[in-house]
Amino acid sequence: MTYSVDLNCDMGESFGAWTLGQDAAVLPFVTSANIACGFHAGDPGVMRQTVRAALSHHVALGVHPGLPDLVGFGRRNMDISPEEAFDMVVYQLGALGAVARAEGGRLHHLKPHGALYNMAATNAALAQAIAEAVHRVQPELVLYGLAGSELTRAGERLGLKTAHEVFADRTYQANGTLTPRRQPDALVTDADAAVAQVLRMVRTGQVRSQQGPDVAIRADTVCLHGDGAHAVEFAQRLHGALREAGVRLGADFSGAR
Amino acid sequence: MTYSVDLNCDMGESFGAWTLGQDAAVLPFVTSANIACGFHAGDPGVMRQTVRAALSHHVALGVHPGLPDLVGFGRRNMDISPEEAFDMVVYQLGALGAVARAEGGRLHHLKPHGALYNMAATNAALAQAIAEAVHRVQPELVLYGLAGSELTRAGERLGLKTAHEVFADRTYQANGTLTPRRQPDALVTDADAAVAQVLRMVRTGQVRSQQGPDVAIRADTVCLHGDGAHAVEFAQRLHGALREAGVRLGADFSGAR
Amino acid sequence: MTYSVDLNCDMGESFGAWTLGQDAAVLPFVTSANIACGFHAGDPGVMRQTVRAALSHHVALGVHPGLPDLVGFGRRNMDISPEEAFDMVVYQLGALGAVARAEGGRLHHLKPHGALYNMAATNAALAQAIAEAVHRVQPELVLYGLAGSELTRAGERLGLKTAHEVFADRTYQANGTLTPRRQPDALVTDADAAVAQVLRMVRTGQVRSQQGPDVAIRADTVCLHGDGAHAVEFAQRLHGALREAGVRLGADFSGAR
Amino acid sequence: MTYSVDLNCDMGESFGAWTLGQDAAVLPFVTSANIACGFHAGDPGVMRQTVRAALSHHVALGVHPGLPDLVGFGRRNMDISPEEAFDMVVYQLGALGAVARAEGGRLHHLKPHGALYNMAATNAALAQAIAEAVHRVQPELVLYGLAGSELTRAGERLGLKTAHEVFADRTYQANGTLTPRRQPDALVTDADAAVAQVLRMVRTGQVRSQQGPDVAIRADTVCLHGDGAHAVEFAQRLHGALREAGVRLGADFSGAR
Repeated sequence: MTYSVDLNCDMGESFGAWTLGQDAAVLPFVTSANIACGFHAGDPGVMRQTVRAALSHHVALGVHPGLPDLVGFGRRNMDISPEEAFDMVVYQLGALGAVARAEGGRLHHLKPHGALYNMAATNAALAQAIAEAVHRVQPELVLYGLAGSELTRAGERLGLKTAHEVFADRTYQANGTLTPRRQPDALVTDADAAVAQVLRMVRTGQVRSQQGPDVAIRADTVCLHGDGAHAVEFAQRLHGALREAGVRLGADFSGAR
Repeated sequence: MTYSVDLNCDMGESFGAWTLGQDAAVLPFVTSANIACGFHAGDPGVMRQTVRAALSHHVALGVHPGLPDLVGFGRRNMDISPEEAFDMVVYQLGALGAVARAEGGRLHHLKPHGALYNMAATNAALAQAIAEAVHRVQPELVLYGLAGSELTRAGERLGLKTAHEVFADRTYQANGTLTPRRQPDALVTDADAAVAQVLRMVRTGQVRSQQGPDVAIRADTVCLHGDGAHAVEFAQRLHGALREAGVRLGADFSGAR
Repeated sequence: MTYSVDLNCDMGESFGAWTLGQDAAVLPFVTSANIACGFHAGDPGVMRQTVRAALSHHVALGVHPGLPDLVGFGRRNMDISPEEAFDMVVYQLGALGAVARAEGGRLHHLKPHGALYNMAATNAALAQAIAEAVHRVQPELVLYGLAGSELTRAGERLGLKTAHEVFADRTYQANGTLTPRRQPDALVTDADAAVAQVLRMVRTGQVRSQQGPDVAIRADTVCLHGDGAHAVEFAQRLHGALREAGVRLGADFSGAR
Repeated sequence: MTYSVDLNCDMGESFGAWTLGQDAAVLPFVTSANIACGFHAGDPGVMRQTVRAALSHHVALGVHPGLPDLVGFGRRNMDISPEEAFDMVVYQLGALGAVARAEGGRLHHLKPHGALYNMAATNAALAQAIAEAVHRVQPELVLYGLAGSELTRAGERLGLKTAHEVFADRTYQANGTLTPRRQPDALVTDADAAVAQVLRMVRTGQVRSQQGPDVAIRADTVCLHGDGAHAVEFAQRLHGALREAGVRLGADFSGAR
């Protein structure tokens, strides 16, 4: 039996004169890119360059819509209505889609950014609105969301393909949720342990919870980071470990599921 | 012989809590709508409502990309590069295209807004970049530009369908250009004269220049205004006069040309 | 004994090409103006015109800082930190202060807008940050906040002058808070009843709660609205009723308190 | 006889999650800082941190207002009216002034940024508007502008203190203007030559033009750069060379002039 998993990373988060992230260095080690669309980061020129770079690495193109909060990088929760969420996802999806077409590419997936991702993980109405936006505009896209979240659930209700996302560097609770960041044990700081956690999730669909027992988790895609001191190094290491272990890397989600 | 012409109007120029224009009142009298895309006006919610309203009136949907200058309503020239023009047109085209798809509609044309329109009328490099953006993303769109401008020329070089735009309420120079607004005789202030000017342009392809002689002009589409005290009244009047005169109104540009 | 009260109204909420509110019509009936500062509404030109208009009516100039959410008009709660609240209030206070100086005026008060006002009414840390901002930049300003809120409390702890704000058109709960807008009995829809409620608050420091019993309330300033169909009419009426009743109108807060 | 000069550098050009420049490394070698105010770069939090850092190095605080063009970093000319220039300078001046007050500091000067600086160097109406803004809000500020430009001229007409700015790394024309950047000989690429050019300008008020002859130039302040590979190194070197040569460094402009 062959296991497979997608490695995704947020990209195109530069803006105007400002650069952020190490897109070029990370691209060789990921199989899908979540590309910012101008609301929390990215601008039309950065989007084009990022699409072009991703295409040249045969990395799948993903829409990464965010809240309209440039100064807060889309990380601050905002009380938006489901209708507003729908509209801002449609808009950003279309914008990146056109950039992709102009470069000869096609969109592959959509993963909300930051606060929009987090809110959509637990707020069913926002999740539904985001899934509807994908469904109405480009229903063949894969909807990426936190494993077991309201977002993937909403996508599945609408018949969208979904990718359940797991984290190498975050610990899990017995109910399958991420340990909140404010808790001291939220992070897996040891790189070996992080790699091991991913391998086990991919092969067994299980992750050891902080409470002790294993909990079932569906690991379609692993979130890598493009910034931080050791981001590239860790991406390379996880990429290598998965290939060595015979795990197929890719964003086609063509497995037995 | 049947003459035909398109009546277009800028729409969707509200933003957030602010409303602008009289879209609902003008829609019955136009055959195509140029919809703002968030850079100079419009927001994702306004765009959806405008698309929906236009579709309900069977009015053709147009992209109306502007400069990223919300406070200046896209009316202030900016020294953007052709590459920046290309990128901002691709982005806005895609955004509105997705809104249209979400509402079950399709885009029909693209007409730049304000300063971008004016700069593209005379700056060949910008005109080329805008035409390229359309060509690369959705080459079946009609490119609207000032009659006889660099923009329509650039579109034609790329094989795009173009619509040459004329004005009911502006006077013309012997070389076919608009009389600059700063000149006292720039405007046709008499409504009867404005209607007559349009009728003559449509039927004969001629317009009387301020210098006296007629000048040839291709009148595919007439620009109407959606704001101002008498905008709706004039739209209704021109619409009525053209129909009475047996001119076919529509945005299909399927004539003998 | 003479009673006195201030009548305040949000102003300068136009932006670029968009106009909002009926500032000129309302100015004769208010004694203080809360002027938007560019984050949720207003732009540098609108600010200058609004300051000038307020000065010409001898209306006190107030800073009306909002969240950086133009498309949402500052009405959507955002998870900002107290430090971010401090910084955005300092910034907007300074910007309006300079506009006032350029026009020969001086700032009189500060009242947060929309979601910032609402969050500061109950979130002690945000309230403290906003009060600190005033205290550090211009401690002679009066801090306007919901009567009995965390914001007025924070101002008082720092020794700021505060103005407790009441509403003519909102009903109150037995604990002194406003009836939430989602409840059917949130609004005082009868204009006579609204005027009577204000008069009683000003003269007796009491308001009838929806539960029946009176509740004590400090009514330093009454919030009027500058938009809506009957806003001007009601402002004029309340202004007239208070003057007829011998209530002194003004923003100097020099009463016996 | 003692010569003196100011060394200024643009600072606070980070924004939200994005960092730019090497402010901390450059601060020890400059005597005045031009701090971005949120239009082309900078946000309220970055402004506070930059003011604090400058104060801790006893570096004079300058307002660095820019065009409202975040994605273009204020470097693209825009057709703004003098009134718009006035308003945006007043606004930004006030915003930074409040940040300075909150940190216990005072503003010292104002230097427009990027395209606003360049346009104000040659456009007398814009220059006048900017000088008026300073004059109306805080007339004790020093107005920094290109040596011999319309901007310093406008400031002087209004009785403002002005500082004529020169460049270490740019060559000059026989008429005293900078060699345009598009020309191959626009830059002084040799660091020794750049230092020598500054020393000569400060001591003799002369600079060798590209055409050969010397041209008179008033060198009150030298513009240093905070980004680029060798920016800090060059700042340190010029700082050292000037001190070694007995030139007094400071922004008080209290010399014999």
